[in-house]
Amino acid sequence: MGDEDEILSTMEDIAAVYDVLVIGCGPGGFTAAMQASQVGLLTACVDQRASLGGAYLVDGAVPSKTLLYESYLYRLLQQQELIEQRGTRLFPAKFDMQAAQSALKHNIEELGNVYKRELSKNNVTVYKGTAAFKDPHHVEIAQRGMKPFIVEAKYIVVATGSAVIQCPGVAIDNDKIISSDKALSLDYIPSRFTIMGGGTIGLEIACIFNNLGSRVTIVESQSEICQNMDNELASATKTLLQCQGIAFLLDTRVQLAEADAAGQLNVTLLNKVSKKTYVHHCDVLMVSIGRRPLLKGLDISSIGLDERDFVENVDVQTQSLLKYPHIKPIGDVTLGPMLALKAEEQAIRAIQSIGCTGSDGTSNCGFPPNVLYCQPQIGWVGYTEEGLAKARIPYQKGKVLFSQNVRYNTLLPREENTTVSPFIKVLIDSRDMKILGVHMINDDANELLSQASMAVSLGLTAHDVCKVPFPHPSLSESFKQAVQLAMANGTSPGVHVRE
Amino acid sequence: MGDEDEILSTMEDIAAVYDVLVIGCGPGGFTAAMQASQVGLLTACVDQRASLGGAYLVDGAVPSKTLLYESYLYRLLQQQELIEQRGTRLFPAKFDMQAAQSALKHNIEELGNVYKRELSKNNVTVYKGTAAFKDPHHVEIAQRGMKPFIVEAKYIVVATGSAVIQCPGVAIDNDKIISSDKALSLDYIPSRFTIMGGGTIGLEIACIFNNLGSRVTIVESQSEICQNMDNELASATKTLLQCQGIAFLLDTRVQLAEADAAGQLNVTLLNKVSKKTYVHHCDVLMVSIGRRPLLKGLDISSIGLDERDFVENVDVQTQSLLKYPHIKPIGDVTLGPMLALKAEEQAIRAIQSIGCTGSDGTSNCGFPPNVLYCQPQIGWVGYTEEGLAKARIPYQKGKVLFSQNVRYNTLLPREENTTVSPFIKVLIDSRDMKILGVHMINDDANELLSQASMAVSLGLTAHDVCKVPFPHPSLSESFKQAVQLAMANGTSPGVHVRE
Repeated sequence: MGDEDEILSTMEDIAAVYDVLVIGCGPGGFTAAMQASQVGLLTACVDQRASLGGAYLVDGAVPSKTLLYESYLYRLLQQQELIEQRGTRLFPAKFDMQAAQSALKHNIEELGNVYKRELSKNNVTVYKGTAAFKDPHHVEIAQRGMKPFIVEAKYIVVATGSAVIQCPGVAIDNDKIISSDKALSLDYIPSRFTIMGGGTIGLEIACIFNNLGSRVTIVESQSEICQNMDNELASATKTLLQCQGIAFLLDTRVQLAEADAAGQLNVTLLNKVSKKTYVHHCDVLMVSIGRRPLLKGLDISSIGLDERDFVENVDVQTQSLLKYPHIKPIGDVTLGPMLALKAEEQAIRAIQSIGCTGSDGTSNCGFPPNVLYCQPQIGWVGYTEEGLAKARIPYQKGKVLFSQNVRYNTLLPREENTTVSPFIKVLIDSRDMKILGVHMINDDANELLSQASMAVSLGLTAHDVCKVPFPHPSLSESFKQAVQLAMANGTSPGVHVRE
Repeated sequence: MGDEDEILSTMEDIAAVYDVLVIGCGPGGFTAAMQASQVGLLTACVDQRASLGGAYLVDGAVPSKTLLYESYLYRLLQQQELIEQRGTRLFPAKFDMQAAQSALKHNIEELGNVYKRELSKNNVTVYKGTAAFKDPHHVEIAQRGMKPFIVEAKYIVVATGSAVIQCPGVAIDNDKIISSDKALSLDYIPSRFTIMGGGTIGLEIACIFNNLGSRVTIVESQSEICQNMDNELASATKTLLQCQGIAFLLDTRVQLAEADAAGQLNVTLLNKVSKKTYVHHCDVLMVSIGRRPLLKGLDISSIGLDERDFVENVDVQTQSLLKYPHIKPIGDVTLGPMLALKAEEQAIRAIQSIGCTGSDGTSNCGFPPNVLYCQPQIGWVGYTEEGLAKARIPYQKGKVLFSQNVRYNTLLPREENTTVSPFIKVLIDSRDMKILGVHMINDDANELLSQASMAVSLGLTAHDVCKVPFPHPSLSESFKQAVQLAMANGTSPGVHVRE
């Protein structure tokens, strides 16, 4: 439990003393606070947003997934012919962005209240305000309209999350040039919507506004979207989104963006291949070229730390800073993918390391499952084909189209897309038949991926999966079929099996 | 491979000789034929329907799941307020049953053609016609407009499926009094639709017509619906369907059903508890009190067999009749649940037993996963609480409501139902933490159940599931949460742990 004497209280007016202070109440911070209080530690939590839940709940995953679903519903309902074919007669639909945003705000508040109630039930004190280090065990909390005060804590969990990376020459004003956070709370539908960055955040927001009728263009400086995706999957994803109407400008950099007198944005682009510069016009430009740890305002320099200490100098077994083991960074401020999943697992590890918990909740996060929530969804977990080739692991591959799946054919209406047919691809180790990677496009990838993640993270073999009876009819049957096919297929060409 | 001399050819005019003849081409027959041909056996298949795929494809699972989805879509789209709240403005919708049926017929034909193409690619001869035993190795095939002929086979797989059980006093005329098969091809929506039988088939068809606006009543002779369901789940299911507008008459028997001059059906009902008889009025009565093996027409008596031989006198390791080991019944003609899943697994076992196959496809079918495809769906796999109590297995229980799941809250619109909140319940063995049963109500149970089935059939423990990173946000996260809760909860009261 640490030694009380370690804490040299040089402060007057200490308002409260805690075992654990959690700074930031997104999924990671919330999990840490809940875990800590449940094992008997006196816990407080500080968060500066109006609603708990962090960027995740307030302007990240929840709004994006909600709007993705709603805008998909709208796009679907506009395809009168497809729906009438299957029985239901409709008149053309209209979308009311203000109604959607108002329902969304309500939903976010409700979810934030769930956080609040749970924390309160578990006797976690919640401060709404900002936090800044005064010394390694003391933090100043400033709440709006109140005199700042100091709290003391034996352990401090830093879960302050991340913020959008800015781009030189493209000043975010959240009017014409907006961040991805702002995009999710727009209460109108821009006519021409251009997005800098072809990562998952950019692609999901592109889908929302494309569904709602914006002319969407994605500008990406690399030669392919979604760098960490399996090449076959990334290429299919790009084709799919192109068929839905999204335009891609690859190998292209944004050099400057300025509004003209008429309110139009003039964006100067450089094609990296042709080396040519040209001007692209749009109404709104969104910057989503990545996110970076959000430590500003925390005054870490006052205790001799800089941002690199949170990335490079962390003991990952206990989530502790090497310099101050009682300070535990989790989530987006640390190395690795910026996923709520990772933050939650790190939260559990951090609290376990305090030494009085018996919880058994940490998962194998080496290969977290990833979902792009467009429609159909894109999901992947484990090794890509490129990763296996690079690691020189001999593998076998099974790929199955959902068009032959019975459940798929009962679920309708669906848009015909002649160039990309939803599929699932399974990669297994030729030596021991272990399932190493699963990559898919289908309407329900975020649930199907759970099975795949079970197989990959528990080291299940193809033989194991063959023993499982799958519900009939279900999309999941195609997973089993792809596994069976991978077993029947030989080792992929170009990979040499070491005898 | 059996001995040729065994086959005493007393027939003239043998049209063809096969290693394997499969009678019936539903999911079981199709799988048997494919497996047999793929291991090099000369194979033929005979089926009497216009389209391949059996009752499963033509008048069972595929039409019911398609109409369930379409009718749900219709019901959803009628709830203008719910949808407008989430952005999309619609005018009230109408349902055109003829359009739906015509799309359905097309879909069934397409799926039947997939069967046909696959069989043809694998050199399986397909006869469209009826089959009747002439002696243990010879079957007469009668095709419409052709002279019957005899084929000889070393092995005969009987996969003829099942038919609706008739009820005395209630003569099915497929006009006013219809079978469940007929219900799925009705091209109009009856105003008052009454169903005999509260099993899964009855409930699914009840949902379709209730969604489309029929006044639906279910008459069930037992005191609860779905006998094999966990009690808590069955009771929640009944309440859910009641809230959607379906009426239940439990403990009630149909004694007589007759149409009057005005075309109205008068159905005489007996309440088993009050012993009172009364008359119930409706426009269409559907009989779905169960299905029985369909062996009629196969002339099994000519080789000294009766129906009981297919149920009682079968070696389940090889799917062989004890009397004639070369005759292999699979699917609905055998003991156990009438699920396509079971038929397919038996098909694989039957062909493996012929002795020249290396396929590794049989699954652990002791506890097949079950889904009721209403909306939200009901899914279950493994032990019920009642089953565990009866087997005196000490267990722990974790139950989680989806209303606290983030993904659940992004998927909308959904009908508010104040009495039943979708949930997932996990039952684990208190002694070794193995996952023994999973029971759930949610929109996507048929895919979530795959994970549960993996856990149950592979004997995974709660600790294993805790190690798995689940996609975030996803409904599947609630499965993991329920597992964690079951671990934290003590052994259920009333169950005595043997030390």
